[in-house]
Amino acid sequence: MKTKQINAYGTDSPEADLKQLQIERRTVLPEDVEIEILYCGVCHSDLHFAKNDWGMTQYPVVPGHEIVGRVTNVGANVSKHKIGDIVAVGCLVDSCRTCNNCKNDLEQYCPEWVGTYGGFDKHLQTNTHGGYSQSIVVDEAFVLSVPENLDLAGLAPVLCAGITTWSPLRYWNVGKGSKVAVVGLGGLGHMAIKLANALGAHVTLFSRSPNKIDDAKALGAHDIVISTDESQMEAAMGQFDLILDTVPYEHDFNPYISTLNVNGILVILGFLGVLEPPLVTVPMIMGRKSVAGSLIGGIAETQELLDFCGKHNITSDVEVIKMQDINTAYERMLRSDVKYRFVIDMNSLR
Amino acid sequence: MKTKQINAYGTDSPEADLKQLQIERRTVLPEDVEIEILYCGVCHSDLHFAKNDWGMTQYPVVPGHEIVGRVTNVGANVSKHKIGDIVAVGCLVDSCRTCNNCKNDLEQYCPEWVGTYGGFDKHLQTNTHGGYSQSIVVDEAFVLSVPENLDLAGLAPVLCAGITTWSPLRYWNVGKGSKVAVVGLGGLGHMAIKLANALGAHVTLFSRSPNKIDDAKALGAHDIVISTDESQMEAAMGQFDLILDTVPYEHDFNPYISTLNVNGILVILGFLGVLEPPLVTVPMIMGRKSVAGSLIGGIAETQELLDFCGKHNITSDVEVIKMQDINTAYERMLRSDVKYRFVIDMNSLR
Repeated sequence: MKTKQINAYGTDSPEADLKQLQIERRTVLPEDVEIEILYCGVCHSDLHFAKNDWGMTQYPVVPGHEIVGRVTNVGANVSKHKIGDIVAVGCLVDSCRTCNNCKNDLEQYCPEWVGTYGGFDKHLQTNTHGGYSQSIVVDEAFVLSVPENLDLAGLAPVLCAGITTWSPLRYWNVGKGSKVAVVGLGGLGHMAIKLANALGAHVTLFSRSPNKIDDAKALGAHDIVISTDESQMEAAMGQFDLILDTVPYEHDFNPYISTLNVNGILVILGFLGVLEPPLVTVPMIMGRKSVAGSLIGGIAETQELLDFCGKHNITSDVEVIKMQDINTAYERMLRSDVKYRFVIDMNSLR
Repeated sequence: MKTKQINAYGTDSPEADLKQLQIERRTVLPEDVEIEILYCGVCHSDLHFAKNDWGMTQYPVVPGHEIVGRVTNVGANVSKHKIGDIVAVGCLVDSCRTCNNCKNDLEQYCPEWVGTYGGFDKHLQTNTHGGYSQSIVVDEAFVLSVPENLDLAGLAPVLCAGITTWSPLRYWNVGKGSKVAVVGLGGLGHMAIKLANALGAHVTLFSRSPNKIDDAKALGAHDIVISTDESQMEAAMGQFDLILDTVPYEHDFNPYISTLNVNGILVILGFLGVLEPPLVTVPMIMGRKSVAGSLIGGIAETQELLDFCGKHNITSDVEVIKMQDINTAYERMLRSDVKYRFVIDMNSLR
């Protein structure tokens, strides 16, 4: 297979900072789109993966799955995209395409889905490498169209932070009259507020800090409940149809379950781990309440979101950085010191 | 308020056996139906309540909320039932009737619902007393009609064990093509198998014991997975749309979550407590799986179930006992030594 060498940023070990390295990209196959990467968002998962926090990283790793770029070449059979188009790639670059999940536009639940980084690249027989790089080559079935009116840096986080919150909002039928709450105001949380608001829901932010009230309202939250204030939590009991919990670390979900209405659903989006302290079943049984998980979204659903963002002029609030600043950005991300997502200007890597 | 004294069985303390005692029933008010109790099922909750396992029992307690009887008197405004009708009463004898849940036929989730026993009787200003008694007086809105073709002793457990499994089967749209699993083969579990089968689902029983295979198949299970056999559990991964977990004691729910298909839901019906060992979120997130609770059912839904049972000739498999044998029955119930529900022939208390 013909390949070419490009510049990227990654790491060879969990202890090392990210640094510039060279990776191979295949030249286009008949169904492929080659994309010059313009912007790549910085997701918490990038950091977890680089540090091998989930114990499954193969090195070298090149993170990045919130990719916006320009088409520079297309394979002979490509019909969806042409040279010069602005396109996007999210967390998936392939799946089996034949299982029930793939047939139902749920590629994210295909047992053989291929992550944009850290997956298995069947063409090069190596790891897939993500968007912290000059370019990427992706099968057109996994390349998304981008509305013309949106800021491209702000659009990048829609590909992961956006779709991760959009998918449960859509699956659980949020719309006018819905009462939605969001736990945590970070990359996911701020997108959840914007999207739920645009869908017509009444949106409440749970936050530990009163400092976030003004920001949350500016993003589209109608109410803020300070989760450390017992009287506010008490007043919120039985209120919500859907809660999106975006917090990426261990915490007690039980107080939020109490704020669900009958038939309400709490969706865990950010925390991969063990529910400590454990759930208490009584409030779940006494109100037919559910605790669910949800993972990113499928390709059709991601395109739907991009179109929705175009229509409603929604992008992420971002801080644009140079590729060379990624290690500092990771440190700041760990302190939640960003409003609300770092996005790398990939011109810095040319 | 006019009352009359009747015989009942109950207890004055958590340590004492149940014994005969006298309680008061009101004479009929305009909306009331007076019912001579013919049969009353014996539910695990009866025992929990008698022993104050949930810390909320007020004594004396007269258990019993699976009641089938004959109408002996009606108030002036009663239109649904007449003297001589065979009727049933389940877990609820009143609710506020004005909240959203009541308006939506979800009286079981009304914050003011009145349990058939252990609730607050606004007429007598005492505890409500249940079906371990000669008769009961209930507002006609909470009195159900009974199909003519069914065995009345077998019908009694439908009022709690039946509706507790029916409500989630209906709420989560089980029908032809659904793959349903049931954890535990007791009062609830055996009803769950019968009802899911009659709805057209493919039904699997999870059981720790291979001894139950023949019985489960006779009840309508298509498959049995021995939950202590790792290879069988492995083979069951990703299979089920809905799992009804009827086990009333602490156990690990995580292995069952792994057997859910994408979008699958595990419903906790039997266990009131803390989920130890705690849930692991990863399989939930990786397949949009939910863990939910569900509580009995509403009045309209219970009537729907009784009609469904009449149409499909479904009753519970029961062992009929005398009222005087209740303490032995409780001991046997704790050892799961009953197929599958004790029902008291209330003629024994005349």
